[in-house]
Amino acid sequence: MSYILQVDFPYTGPWGEDMVPAMEGLAQSIAEEPGLLWKIWTENEAAGEAGGVYLFADRASAEAYLSMHTVRLQSAGVTQVKGKIFRVNDALSKIDRAPI
Amino acid sequence: MSYILQVDFPYTGPWGEDMVPAMEGLAQSIAEEPGLLWKIWTENEAAGEAGGVYLFADRASAEAYLSMHTVRLQSAGVTQVKGKIFRVNDALSKIDRAPI
Repeated sequence: MSYILQVDFPYTGPWGEDMVPAMEGLAQSIAEEPGLLWKIWTENEAAGEAGGVYLFADRASAEAYLSMHTVRLQSAGVTQVKGKIFRVNDALSKIDRAPI
Repeated sequence: MSYILQVDFPYTGPWGEDMVPAMEGLAQSIAEEPGLLWKIWTENEAAGEAGGVYLFADRASAEAYLSMHTVRLQSAGVTQVKGKIFRVNDALSKIDRAPI
């Protein structure tokens, strides 16, 4: 039983390849988070938003990460953090080739 | 360059294994959608929400699917469909083991 965490928030850049040098240290630390299976980094320059989709091995790890990450973003001046946690429906997801 | 589509909406069940017989035909049809790489089916019984996280090969396919799926959900009585499309940051995602 795995859990998806969706996070998005207002963001003004840098974008794409320009974002990588600024964030690769953070990405390396996220790779070590307890219970994290993977994170996809997401960005939408036209909408002025960025965030991530995460797969966690259990709900408690997803909740702990969301709490920590929300505080971290707020410390960086990001006040409107949207975070939602969902259980994965394994059987339906496997029909659709999901990497779970 | 791939694209994430996040969709969620109010939902009252069935949940988990009970959802599978009702939705497996839909899941099979979604597997055939143009440009779809995979879908993860998401559900949160406590919040009364469900949805999906999709990876598409290009932005146009994600936009076309979101338009079609929103109409399909509205036809089923779901009026509050939240859908967001994001470009994937490949380099940062690969650091975090992302299945892209």
